[in-house]
Amino acid sequence: MARVPRRQRLLLPLLCLLFQGATALLFAIFVRYNHETDAALWHWGNHSNVDNEFYFRYPSFQDVHVMVFVGFGFLMVFLHRYGFSSVGFTFLVATLTLQWATLLQGFLHSFRGGYIYVGVESLINADFCAGAVLISFGAVLGKTGPAQLLLMALLEAVLFSVNEFIQLSLLGVRDAGGSMTIHTFGAYFGLFLSRVLYRSQLEKSRHRQSSVYNSDLFAMIGTIFLWVFWPSFNSAPTALGDGQHRTVVNTYYSLTASTLSTFALSALVSEDGRLDMVHVQNAALAGGVVVGTSSEMMLTPFGALAAGFLAGTVSTLGYKFFTDTCGVHNLHGMPGLLGAILGVVVAALATHEAYGDGLQSVFPLIAKGQRSATSQAMYQLFGMFVTLAFASVGGSLGGLLLRLPFLDAPPDSQCFEDQVFWEVPGEQEAETQRPLRAEEPDTQA
Amino acid sequence: MARVPRRQRLLLPLLCLLFQGATALLFAIFVRYNHETDAALWHWGNHSNVDNEFYFRYPSFQDVHVMVFVGFGFLMVFLHRYGFSSVGFTFLVATLTLQWATLLQGFLHSFRGGYIYVGVESLINADFCAGAVLISFGAVLGKTGPAQLLLMALLEAVLFSVNEFIQLSLLGVRDAGGSMTIHTFGAYFGLFLSRVLYRSQLEKSRHRQSSVYNSDLFAMIGTIFLWVFWPSFNSAPTALGDGQHRTVVNTYYSLTASTLSTFALSALVSEDGRLDMVHVQNAALAGGVVVGTSSEMMLTPFGALAAGFLAGTVSTLGYKFFTDTCGVHNLHGMPGLLGAILGVVVAALATHEAYGDGLQSVFPLIAKGQRSATSQAMYQLFGMFVTLAFASVGGSLGGLLLRLPFLDAPPDSQCFEDQVFWEVPGEQEAETQRPLRAEEPDTQA
Amino acid sequence: MARVPRRQRLLLPLLCLLFQGATALLFAIFVRYNHETDAALWHWGNHSNVDNEFYFRYPSFQDVHVMVFVGFGFLMVFLHRYGFSSVGFTFLVATLTLQWATLLQGFLHSFRGGYIYVGVESLINADFCAGAVLISFGAVLGKTGPAQLLLMALLEAVLFSVNEFIQLSLLGVRDAGGSMTIHTFGAYFGLFLSRVLYRSQLEKSRHRQSSVYNSDLFAMIGTIFLWVFWPSFNSAPTALGDGQHRTVVNTYYSLTASTLSTFALSALVSEDGRLDMVHVQNAALAGGVVVGTSSEMMLTPFGALAAGFLAGTVSTLGYKFFTDTCGVHNLHGMPGLLGAILGVVVAALATHEAYGDGLQSVFPLIAKGQRSATSQAMYQLFGMFVTLAFASVGGSLGGLLLRLPFLDAPPDSQCFEDQVFWEVPGEQEAETQRPLRAEEPDTQA
Repeated sequence: MARVPRRQRLLLPLLCLLFQGATALLFAIFVRYNHETDAALWHWGNHSNVDNEFYFRYPSFQDVHVMVFVGFGFLMVFLHRYGFSSVGFTFLVATLTLQWATLLQGFLHSFRGGYIYVGVESLINADFCAGAVLISFGAVLGKTGPAQLLLMALLEAVLFSVNEFIQLSLLGVRDAGGSMTIHTFGAYFGLFLSRVLYRSQLEKSRHRQSSVYNSDLFAMIGTIFLWVFWPSFNSAPTALGDGQHRTVVNTYYSLTASTLSTFALSALVSEDGRLDMVHVQNAALAGGVVVGTSSEMMLTPFGALAAGFLAGTVSTLGYKFFTDTCGVHNLHGMPGLLGAILGVVVAALATHEAYGDGLQSVFPLIAKGQRSATSQAMYQLFGMFVTLAFASVGGSLGGLLLRLPFLDAPPDSQCFEDQVFWEVPGEQEAETQRPLRAEEPDTQA
Repeated sequence: MARVPRRQRLLLPLLCLLFQGATALLFAIFVRYNHETDAALWHWGNHSNVDNEFYFRYPSFQDVHVMVFVGFGFLMVFLHRYGFSSVGFTFLVATLTLQWATLLQGFLHSFRGGYIYVGVESLINADFCAGAVLISFGAVLGKTGPAQLLLMALLEAVLFSVNEFIQLSLLGVRDAGGSMTIHTFGAYFGLFLSRVLYRSQLEKSRHRQSSVYNSDLFAMIGTIFLWVFWPSFNSAPTALGDGQHRTVVNTYYSLTASTLSTFALSALVSEDGRLDMVHVQNAALAGGVVVGTSSEMMLTPFGALAAGFLAGTVSTLGYKFFTDTCGVHNLHGMPGLLGAILGVVVAALATHEAYGDGLQSVFPLIAKGQRSATSQAMYQLFGMFVTLAFASVGGSLGGLLLRLPFLDAPPDSQCFEDQVFWEVPGEQEAETQRPLRAEEPDTQA
Repeated sequence: MARVPRRQRLLLPLLCLLFQGATALLFAIFVRYNHETDAALWHWGNHSNVDNEFYFRYPSFQDVHVMVFVGFGFLMVFLHRYGFSSVGFTFLVATLTLQWATLLQGFLHSFRGGYIYVGVESLINADFCAGAVLISFGAVLGKTGPAQLLLMALLEAVLFSVNEFIQLSLLGVRDAGGSMTIHTFGAYFGLFLSRVLYRSQLEKSRHRQSSVYNSDLFAMIGTIFLWVFWPSFNSAPTALGDGQHRTVVNTYYSLTASTLSTFALSALVSEDGRLDMVHVQNAALAGGVVVGTSSEMMLTPFGALAAGFLAGTVSTLGYKFFTDTCGVHNLHGMPGLLGAILGVVVAALATHEAYGDGLQSVFPLIAKGQRSATSQAMYQLFGMFVTLAFASVGGSLGGLLLRLPFLDAPPDSQCFEDQVFWEVPGEQEAETQRPLRAEEPDTQA
């Protein structure tokens, strides 16, 4: 039976302890409560209209938190022998990322006087970074050990945070829901990493690379929570007021359209007219990805429907004709790129008439007259290429890192298999005891 | 093996594409962001006290959204061979309904100057319409194809929206949580439709009309999320302030009472004193249905307990003695009617003393002196009969529509079976490979 | 086959009806809407800054509600033959507790002029009491019948409410997230009760005391929802403003640290380096328990990490070396005591400088000069011992109560078995019909 080789048994514990020790030390030195979180700094009334900001953002934060842990975790449970790893490693890797991203994003965004100041918005941003890491996890699902995943998360969080900083703070790119910074970045980082990790003998594990009836139902828990809460994901960091309303409305309608096109295409491309659960689990979500950049903009409800429809179509065709294990390219890669391009187009169309006073919160640089709409569109496009560059170079580096020989890659014949890393209880216990039980003396009668 | 007949393979894709094309066209022509959602129309401070309304309603909206997709979707997964269809068709049908209801409700409620204006309240209202359609889906569960369900949704959304408009806008009926407009309407529409669709040979599929251990646990995910979020369902459209507080409190206590009476009655009516999971999955929720109309009223906490207790009792007895597949009559039909009658009684008892200034938001017509409490009660009662008329006539018409020969009804021997419409992975894969795996060479040691 | 003995068949129904009748009567006499919930008493603007309190607390309330019913319910589904009972009895017992706790806490905290006044905060407090009862349920999981559990809930809710009143109102102890009043109390009440109920022949049921693959995945639904929403649990009753921000931030980081230490220790203590799902399901949550008392205090982000790390470590070691069925001592007992002690230490370190004006809401008695920080710390410590006394004496009494011979304890050979109390559908149905189906004539072709 598969076992963790003796020389690797300490690897995962040591990495966890080392990383936790390091982040704890950095927290002790650098991390402080921000002015809304510190008892001595906070007063009602000091904040006039934003008094309530925490309360307005907290429900969205919790929705995003559910998406990261329940959504991504269960979405990947579809593999019938890899459920413990899918939900368990999601848990482990996302958790480390939350701490690590707090530090990285803090140094980049809120480092003042030698300290990082954290509050609820730090938690939202860290969750977003964890989302990108989990998308990359999908690209290497089943083929990597937990220690490899921790190293991947460590590297990816750095590159994610730097890229995000370049996009939002240096290039003035708008990307509230992360079509570029989260989905495109996470997908191509993972796919490049996976390419470098390429294993020629993986067909030895092919028989495990499928779902069973119940694993597909578990995966639908992930799908539905992602689908339902996606309006919160895209709107969590947008400006309070009309910006959040619009993001919610656009995301909601885009998702309905991607769901309808997914069902249509899934039945259309199958040989016998039957629907494929893999499409429904994944492509139906492409509508959330594709409006990640543009849902805070004046996309119009029709624009949201059209974008979602296109994304669901492209994603389903992707699943049908060239898929990786978890379909990361189909769910996050292509719809993310489409979303980035949609952002370019909608930014180019921005006018003072269409946005009125709201231009200030959606395109502050255009409102201040520092940029034209066309120029903003060019920056958006440039941002997409910067993101692709970070993802491809970073992912390739990550692949080299994960090929280090002392790591815990499962052997070719043991990929997509929980038992390499988990104590797995028997499946049959319930079955074998059921007939026996009938003959047990009924001591109650 | 069951297959989609060749001539029907294009039916579902064509319907999806046709409907999506039509709604997208109508969105392009008619749907615009409302003043809270449009960047150019919205300003903080323009709205004084309702500035925050979006934020106060958004968490309830998300709870309702979870109920519609997770709650209804998983509640119907109890059938052991119909899990993909239950959660998948819920997803498909609810999604189409959201788009379609936005248009219908928009034309009826917010059509001004040639446009429909949408915002977060449009999303809540569309979700409510989807709830009614999913209740009807429960009545035909396992016996219809997805194309039939789409047609049903199309017709039902029209009748739902017209009936809701008549109730709320013309008759001045109060029905915040939808005992009448959602539960009674959805249940009887579905039951009448199911009667017209009657299939004499359905016993050929009887062996599939049962649950297995894991399918019952999946269904409990649906039950618990419905139970937990029901206070948000009933309170989502009520007046801000005391109206929402009261609705939450009443619904919460009513649900506790229906749960206790369900457990009591379930054990009482079984032959051997054991509990029936079907009762717990369903009748425990009757407390939410029965206070749908009256939970915003001064029902009193005791009144909520009494109503919930009665609803749980009636519903459990219904499941025991005359049930349809999904028990729609027991969970939504009878408790919905009880809820409508409870609304009549509580409205009749309304006084200026009991409601004070709050009378304006609960019974505006009584507050303005345009109606007496007794007259309001009569309108409530009349509204119930109008709802029943719409549901029975509409459901019967729907049944005729769904009997159109070119639709995708599954054959009598293939009802309650996922494989007719879905690619279903094998169940045994995990089992058969498990023993083999022990002998695989351990390449890691 | 196991059956409910004839003489006990009426026990559960009668208890449910009796309790529901009694609480309904008490509701009728004593329970009234409070000034925010009553139509005649409530006005916007009467409440100035707390107008919005309901809306700020409602999302947290719903998160706690999900934790109690989805979280605890599914966390205990891990036993492969006890899933119906775990989620079903959680439902039953929590529900009764909600009604009963409303009355008890109402009499102790809001009894004025002969009435108890209820609002949304009553619902939060009742949910907290249900949390404590469900922790105790974990300690007797599989070994008790539903009637026994109802009696346990009845007694425990009384002692919980009295202890909570002594702690918060008489001793001025701070314990927002309930390290003491919920986790320590619930755990030791259950463990003492379980000890008195001790059954020597329980090894007859040992083969059922394990999980299967799918039951572990269901349990992870419970774990993840508990983990994700724990910041809402700890912050639900804290002061609005910085107190809630800080509680959320501290709880979030503490949970990340307990998750990392759980994975590290789980791999470290296993013989072959593999992870144990039981640890991940439970010990990862210890970070939420351990900051229950101190998360509203100026614990610092580093303090939160350190506390979470310690709790995850202690809890995982507990699971490895001495566990009860559900690991209540490891998840709630030890981390709860650690949390109480952490509260003592952090309270002792409280200064006017560190808390500023916020001292008033965290330590009002220190702010008013009625207590020194050291004295507050001593009260915290004393509160812990009072809690332990209530739990141990109360739990032992509860054990004696539950040994009453006419109750519904399952026989020694039928513990951890759903079929004693539930109609359980067959497991194999799906399997046996699958091959047959292939030969059925395809009536559609």
